[in-house]
Amino acid sequence: MRNPQILLASRPAGEPTPDNFRLVETETPPLADGQVLVRHHYLSLDPYMRGRMNEGRSYAQPQPLGEVMIGGTVGEVVESRHPGFAPGDHVVGMGGWQQYSVVDAAQPGLLRKVDTRTIPLSAYLGAVGMPGATAWVGLTQIIAPKAGETVVVSAASGAVGGAVGQLAKARGCRVVGIAGGPEKCGYVTGELGFDACIDHKANGDLKSMLKALKETCPDGIDGYFENVGGVILDAVMLRMNAFGRIAMCGMIAGYNGEPIPMANPSLILVSRLKVQGFIVSEHMNLWPEALKELGGLVASGRLKYRETVAEGLASAPEAFIGLLKGRNFGKQLVKLV
Amino acid sequence: MRNPQILLASRPAGEPTPDNFRLVETETPPLADGQVLVRHHYLSLDPYMRGRMNEGRSYAQPQPLGEVMIGGTVGEVVESRHPGFAPGDHVVGMGGWQQYSVVDAAQPGLLRKVDTRTIPLSAYLGAVGMPGATAWVGLTQIIAPKAGETVVVSAASGAVGGAVGQLAKARGCRVVGIAGGPEKCGYVTGELGFDACIDHKANGDLKSMLKALKETCPDGIDGYFENVGGVILDAVMLRMNAFGRIAMCGMIAGYNGEPIPMANPSLILVSRLKVQGFIVSEHMNLWPEALKELGGLVASGRLKYRETVAEGLASAPEAFIGLLKGRNFGKQLVKLV
Repeated sequence: MRNPQILLASRPAGEPTPDNFRLVETETPPLADGQVLVRHHYLSLDPYMRGRMNEGRSYAQPQPLGEVMIGGTVGEVVESRHPGFAPGDHVVGMGGWQQYSVVDAAQPGLLRKVDTRTIPLSAYLGAVGMPGATAWVGLTQIIAPKAGETVVVSAASGAVGGAVGQLAKARGCRVVGIAGGPEKCGYVTGELGFDACIDHKANGDLKSMLKALKETCPDGIDGYFENVGGVILDAVMLRMNAFGRIAMCGMIAGYNGEPIPMANPSLILVSRLKVQGFIVSEHMNLWPEALKELGGLVASGRLKYRETVAEGLASAPEAFIGLLKGRNFGKQLVKLV
Repeated sequence: MRNPQILLASRPAGEPTPDNFRLVETETPPLADGQVLVRHHYLSLDPYMRGRMNEGRSYAQPQPLGEVMIGGTVGEVVESRHPGFAPGDHVVGMGGWQQYSVVDAAQPGLLRKVDTRTIPLSAYLGAVGMPGATAWVGLTQIIAPKAGETVVVSAASGAVGGAVGQLAKARGCRVVGIAGGPEKCGYVTGELGFDACIDHKANGDLKSMLKALKETCPDGIDGYFENVGGVILDAVMLRMNAFGRIAMCGMIAGYNGEPIPMANPSLILVSRLKVQGFIVSEHMNLWPEALKELGGLVASGRLKYRETVAEGLASAPEAFIGLLKGRNFGKQLVKLV
């Protein structure tokens, strides 16, 4: 099969540009025993990919130059030499930024069949996929909120943030989101059911953000799900209650250059906070439980989400650059069929 | 009894000065039922007192102006109207910066009888007291090191730091201290048995400290017991292994003024660190187990410590100011008899 692919052409200096990517076309190789050919319907774009584009130390190997960009995909099996998969099966995997992938299906965890009768295929890249599991793991394992506590989440209209808030609401918490702009904030409170949402574009400095947090979190903050970093983190820390928990999931604010400092780390001591970073792929043992809850909530319509869909593989670089700037609304996908 | 006392006269702007304290003399009141009069032998000086001198938000109420400075004391009962205490009993309590204290001995936890047959009385203010318990709680509950892991502790020659390192050594860890000056470092490796000690005065900038950490921690750092903050914390974070744990016990570097930022909090995510603050007085349930281990180690000579003893109550302010500047060597005490 002719297979359009997007490679990492060069490493970004600061914000990524379209030049950092290169669109090429190859042929899919013939299948060996145990392999499966998957035609991708959707590619997932996620902030973690920005970290992989750097050369420096991170939790994962850097994305190699000249190779297909890493990425989660859903699609259907078109050819199979593995007894567990048949043409027409819907599958989720890490197919990368390309139209087709050849997967060693015998390797556990690389390819998973999914049921699309009550859950849309694309949701397996969002609320019932890696972003949903990320929300679930950070919320239940690090924040571990009790009913009545206040949980704040940044990037609240995104795939992870939206799930964090709805899972916390389901656990009886007061939930306050932080998002960029009145439209996103309206969606977070109106459609996702958060108790409040702070527009960080209208509260860009520490003082203003802190005031907004005081108004929306009158009893302080017990748990914070961190997707952003910078001023928002500094303000939240000033409002954290004793024994508060901060799950560090992302630091978009620092992806493109100099790290952004934490203004007052002594608050960790003063307020006896726990601040913990995690990577969802290191908690695979929890995924079944997480996806079971998330899938049930999505199937029954109690977990809502929104998708921004770019059309065609060639649109992926621009869509990804927009994602890092917060231009997407909800889960950013690229439709490939 | 005539009772010399030191009061907090004014709040410091930046570093404390002798003017912030006032020496007065009062009479001890007659005892009511259930009360005990204690004559203090030693007063403990500890960095946490600096935080109490500020008005701002902290984990404890600020030290009120015009009242006796808070502080741990050991001494002997000289008069008792409580059946559990008799004249001559050695006791540890929070008597404050004064020669005598009147204690409501019926209130649980205020006064504790101690055995001085195998453990010197002053040790109950250090290795077998609050500093020792602080070391034990932070090490065992937050860092929770496994044999073979590398543990780093700042202020390593101090009462807390010295105990942290020796407790970690007893658990089979590689232990690296950070202390100020060759004399303290020689004591940390020679007498306390740490594997290495870094002189932060000779490695004052990030690059130099990081180089020293690379040399002394060839396998990276798994646990860090934080007593200082600032550049040392930044350097340690760059050297932490995945899933490392940082116990935030003190931030001396930030006591006197502007908070000192953490340069690169995204390392918490990148290295999946857990950074947790704690206050030993909130873990009283663990003290019996902690003091049992610490007392056994001190009695058998396996836990070593050093004391710097100032003579007489009037010397307490200068000794305390020196403590904050690292002029003490080991546990800072004031001898009152």
